[in-house]
Amino acid sequence: MAVTSPVGLHRVLEPAGALPQAAVRLDARPEIGPDEVRLAVRRLNLDAASFRQLATKHDGDGDAVRREVLAIVEARGKMQNPVTGSGGMLVGVVEEVGPESPLGLSVGDQVATLVSLSLTPLRITDGLAGWDGRSEQVPAQGSAILFGRSIAARLPDDLPPDLAMAVLDVCGAPALVHRVLTGYDRPSVAVIGGAGKSGSMALAAARRAGAGATVGIVPVQHEADLLRESGLADHVALADARDPVALAAAVEAALGRAADVTVVCVDVPGCEHGAILATADRGTVVFFSMATSFSAAALGAEGLAADVTMLVGNGYVPGHAELALDLLRTEPGVRALFERRLGE
Amino acid sequence: MAVTSPVGLHRVLEPAGALPQAAVRLDARPEIGPDEVRLAVRRLNLDAASFRQLATKHDGDGDAVRREVLAIVEARGKMQNPVTGSGGMLVGVVEEVGPESPLGLSVGDQVATLVSLSLTPLRITDGLAGWDGRSEQVPAQGSAILFGRSIAARLPDDLPPDLAMAVLDVCGAPALVHRVLTGYDRPSVAVIGGAGKSGSMALAAARRAGAGATVGIVPVQHEADLLRESGLADHVALADARDPVALAAAVEAALGRAADVTVVCVDVPGCEHGAILATADRGTVVFFSMATSFSAAALGAEGLAADVTMLVGNGYVPGHAELALDLLRTEPGVRALFERRLGE
Repeated sequence: MAVTSPVGLHRVLEPAGALPQAAVRLDARPEIGPDEVRLAVRRLNLDAASFRQLATKHDGDGDAVRREVLAIVEARGKMQNPVTGSGGMLVGVVEEVGPESPLGLSVGDQVATLVSLSLTPLRITDGLAGWDGRSEQVPAQGSAILFGRSIAARLPDDLPPDLAMAVLDVCGAPALVHRVLTGYDRPSVAVIGGAGKSGSMALAAARRAGAGATVGIVPVQHEADLLRESGLADHVALADARDPVALAAAVEAALGRAADVTVVCVDVPGCEHGAILATADRGTVVFFSMATSFSAAALGAEGLAADVTMLVGNGYVPGHAELALDLLRTEPGVRALFERRLGE
Repeated sequence: MAVTSPVGLHRVLEPAGALPQAAVRLDARPEIGPDEVRLAVRRLNLDAASFRQLATKHDGDGDAVRREVLAIVEARGKMQNPVTGSGGMLVGVVEEVGPESPLGLSVGDQVATLVSLSLTPLRITDGLAGWDGRSEQVPAQGSAILFGRSIAARLPDDLPPDLAMAVLDVCGAPALVHRVLTGYDRPSVAVIGGAGKSGSMALAAARRAGAGATVGIVPVQHEADLLRESGLADHVALADARDPVALAAAVEAALGRAADVTVVCVDVPGCEHGAILATADRGTVVFFSMATSFSAAALGAEGLAADVTMLVGNGYVPGHAELALDLLRTEPGVRALFERRLGE
């Protein structure tokens, strides 16, 4: 493997010319090229939309879910759910560093990958024996490859690894919310799915970036109680995000008007129209859910004659890992919600 | 039909609570509510992605395409391609105006709908007898309904109706490009699919909005010749937009660097990664193609560690119809490309 590409083209087996994320199959061999890094895998964190699809398909049968994950990794050389297209991330220990790797990692570093599993060459060697198939957190043994242009964050010493990993998994959300809010003056912000991981981070980031008022929308009373207790949102409201009229009404009742910025953090399909309807003219909708339909969003805004900017949530914003870890350390409400989710 | 909703909720038959665009089936009855408008349909303009899907599925058999369009409209009460989710628009004559309609239309006005066919209640009464199934332009008789919050543009007197309709169909693209470019100082702009309808409009809008340099990317020599002749782009380059590395190389060769703003106007799947790779750090990708995959865009940017803003192309921007018609009137290159496409 003498000639390597910083974006991993040399690992694509099929189809030729595709980037690793779009590839059907990757070469996951553990031998590394000069600018690559090999990790010894410790744990996978499956993307929420992916895990939900698998759990639903197999009706909660953990053994069947585990078998399917193993089959996907075996067939594709990466953990990319063929239905949702999404992956997740992983934690591992640096095992070998190519002499030309620009990532600045050293053998023995414990890191989380901040590029998706959907493009990370992966081999599983333990049959996922330590996983019951009932949680997104997957203890695993095997190897994974980082390319020259991959991104990995060293796990901090002051936080439990599973907590840091859960935070880093959604670190794009607070960073992008922060950036979007700088374009507004004390905006009103609605976060759909505000009690979840990316949702609670988005609320914390919105407050820090100078939001005038925030509302977290949740689907059930239990989550409303949790979010209220966390203190992360000025308002908390119950609504089914798939019901556009109900969602818009809930946001308007809480904020007294439509939201300047609406952030979609729930991993269920059909939330596009409600988010658009809940957003003010010249407002922005940030779609972070992998269940978002491009055409539903585009045609929905047009059909509602809604003058809103709609962003595809990009998981990469420079400084995203640092901001997310800082929010976790300084916002007790964020930490409490994350610890509670990990304990479930 | 006493109680009507400005966004058409009262016309949704299934599923309850959905907005018309997301609905499986609409009530297309010609009787109007107090804030509705009924049009006598003259012509449909199918969305390019939708027509391409139908033509490919039926291997170019026009009769089969016509039968399927009729079946879709009959079953759904609207022309929404079940595979692509997209619709198109229509031209008609105002036949009846409800007393509470806010649209300012009068009986006899010839108008184009600027909301998608995918949410417009539609009945076809002539079996599409005047259409050979081989073009996106569909002569048709029947009725269509506009809601309180729909958008329709009166067709201008100085332009042939089919030309005006073709322009209005893509009028969101130049308006959004114009808005995005105001956030940059003399940006470099790449338009993927620059010789097409939305592509040529995007190029003209980019130049008017102060682009430093523009490149139109096209897939075949014939289109390159057409675009060069039109004079709309500073540079013209050939590349397959589905090949990320080739696309990025073509953009960089033409502009001397990555694009600050990349506009995707081709209706084929798989262009997300190339557009991202062709765009500079802190640049913007505007996705106008209905063939765009949300997850491919989101995960692609993350996987490439690309700090780019990605916009879902919203077909509605205030003033969009006026800007597009003005570009058609004042840019001979735009008009020549549109007239040529209509003549094909």
